[in-house]
Amino acid sequence: MAADVATADHDAVLAANRAFYRAFVERDLAAMATLWSEDGAVACIHPGWDVLVGRAAVLASWRDIFAQPTAIACRDARVLAHGDCACVICHETIGDGRGGGMLVATNLFVRQDGAWRLIHHQAGGVAPGAPAPPAAPATRLH
Amino acid sequence: MAADVATADHDAVLAANRAFYRAFVERDLAAMATLWSEDGAVACIHPGWDVLVGRAAVLASWRDIFAQPTAIACRDARVLAHGDCACVICHETIGDGRGGGMLVATNLFVRQDGAWRLIHHQAGGVAPGAPAPPAAPATRLH
Repeated sequence: MAADVATADHDAVLAANRAFYRAFVERDLAAMATLWSEDGAVACIHPGWDVLVGRAAVLASWRDIFAQPTAIACRDARVLAHGDCACVICHETIGDGRGGGMLVATNLFVRQDGAWRLIHHQAGGVAPGAPAPPAAPATRLH
Repeated sequence: MAADVATADHDAVLAANRAFYRAFVERDLAAMATLWSEDGAVACIHPGWDVLVGRAAVLASWRDIFAQPTAIACRDARVLAHGDCACVICHETIGDGRGGGMLVATNLFVRQDGAWRLIHHQAGGVAPGAPAPPAAPATRLH
């Protein structure tokens, strides 16, 4: 049934998003390299950085970031899906999450040969005092 | 030919992106409302804000932003395309562009009934001293 297919896609996208943060936490460059698309252009915008374009530049940035341990956790993941594209929007908590350590991220996945691969990531800080996000009782938006 | 179709899509996506910034500069809420998808979920992350989810919240944020004039210009637009999704990554220059007034943005469009509609926007600041972006001799990446 279409609903089952949509549920399976949604779950697969969230699994890919979890794999992204697992690679981040474990500083696993090989896993990170597998997650990023090898087919076509990719881009990445780390917080405060300018845009990085191309697989080589993006993976080099992760190698540099992995030189230092980062305590990062993903929560509140939501999926905006449209055909073979899925955009995951989530919070990233850095450190213990206090003292302004919350980011909000966009992770854009595309389906290639049955697997969801990243083509773009942007993360940026949420200013202290920013309005609270709406409740997210379910991660499914579409 | 496939190449012509791709070129037409690419041009149409960039036109939609220009229309987004034109609506922004002209504080044209009706035009902005037309640009955002009415079919399915949408989200928006303004610089420093938390994520806004849903068409009503997103359009309300633009109404609030439009209460004040903003000198904003888009440049260096690049397209990451994948089927009926197209992600435009660009710089946003605020004011005269000096004094840390540069942002980098992700605008995610999907094709619906032949038109490219926004389903997500994220913009964030580029820290002074961030590495310069790679040269962008062409806006086509994929």
